[in-house]
Amino acid sequence: MSNADSSIKQRIKSLGLQLPDVVPPVASYQAVVEHEGVAYVSGQLPWRGGALITGRAGENMSLDEAREAARLSALMVLATLNDFLGSLDRIERVLKLNVFVNSAGDFTDQAKVANGASELIEQVLGPVGLHARSAVGVAILPRGALVEVDAIVAVVAD
Amino acid sequence: MSNADSSIKQRIKSLGLQLPDVVPPVASYQAVVEHEGVAYVSGQLPWRGGALITGRAGENMSLDEAREAARLSALMVLATLNDFLGSLDRIERVLKLNVFVNSAGDFTDQAKVANGASELIEQVLGPVGLHARSAVGVAILPRGALVEVDAIVAVVAD
Amino acid sequence: MSNADSSIKQRIKSLGLQLPDVVPPVASYQAVVEHEGVAYVSGQLPWRGGALITGRAGENMSLDEAREAARLSALMVLATLNDFLGSLDRIERVLKLNVFVNSAGDFTDQAKVANGASELIEQVLGPVGLHARSAVGVAILPRGALVEVDAIVAVVAD
Repeated sequence: MSNADSSIKQRIKSLGLQLPDVVPPVASYQAVVEHEGVAYVSGQLPWRGGALITGRAGENMSLDEAREAARLSALMVLATLNDFLGSLDRIERVLKLNVFVNSAGDFTDQAKVANGASELIEQVLGPVGLHARSAVGVAILPRGALVEVDAIVAVVAD
Repeated sequence: MSNADSSIKQRIKSLGLQLPDVVPPVASYQAVVEHEGVAYVSGQLPWRGGALITGRAGENMSLDEAREAARLSALMVLATLNDFLGSLDRIERVLKLNVFVNSAGDFTDQAKVANGASELIEQVLGPVGLHARSAVGVAILPRGALVEVDAIVAVVAD
Repeated sequence: MSNADSSIKQRIKSLGLQLPDVVPPVASYQAVVEHEGVAYVSGQLPWRGGALITGRAGENMSLDEAREAARLSALMVLATLNDFLGSLDRIERVLKLNVFVNSAGDFTDQAKVANGASELIEQVLGPVGLHARSAVGVAILPRGALVEVDAIVAVVAD
């Protein structure tokens, strides 16, 4: 367990990543709810250095900026899980990601944007990070966020 | 069981709430499907006195009106579950809510809108109502509804 | 098993349907991930004869065209499951469909569009195809697709 742990921790470090501080829900919901080995992760927004990345792909944000925002949202999914589980080693398999992209009506690269999230998850977790996924373009996201990512994750008992 | 039942029923009453009549699906899908203790609730729209609340947040509907619509959609989620389960006491835990808000492109208060749903669920169910959540803004909803809420819920055997 | 198999296969044939070739994900995610008897199917787009159906309901696509696109997306969900499971007989129950409709801001027939998906699934699978469902209208979908459908499906062991 501690070997695996240090291997994920090392991978995070070697990727030049750092798990961000989690942003606790401000209302009567929870960041993660677990039931019989399946954890539901609330929609996570893209934060960098404590600042939320806002904007709309195809309007005032480029594909690359949106892909980076998807990556940061996915990093927040991992930070949230780490906070809830105590260790990312307890992830047995990422089952599903939903990637919502704040999109102009003619921006059609949601799949490429979502790859930013998918690749980050796989880079950090390896094969257990391989997931099913839906990516859609939406009119607007909370606080004007550029991307929102939620997840369903199989976890092993503590 | 009957004690708990009357406690939820009492809470609904003391909150001045009444479970609305359920709106059965008009097509070949079902309001709820349950599998091994997990119930999937179809997207529910906001009804009040038999009338659907339509409109768009940030355009012709205010934040408060949208939050109230989220509350009514969540109430319909509960009514639908009550109809399916026979009693809300069979809810073991609300796992995940998805809140879709019919939103103008510059309306960014989807989280506050969704709080209307989250708070209602917690007020009625107590701690078992605490859930993970995603809230997004969408271009339009069925029949022009202001909000749509679906849910994944852990339930105990009959 | 083989009887049931031939019955689903026959039904597909008698409906004049053919399972399309699956479109493998081009990135680091998977078409289907299964965990303890529940399969998560990635969002599927509407393909016909190798061509993606693009457009926006209520703008340059009619209700009927969008409903047909939902039907084709659902057919792709089945093809993807068939590819993953080896046989559609391993489907125990379709639990939930999410139907995202690329919609003009004043197009409100997402439920009728989604019926194209729901009816196809039920026609092919019979009672095990009866599912919970959410249908929403979104600003835009990957590659400009008219409809996207994902699914959560209970499956029996091989």
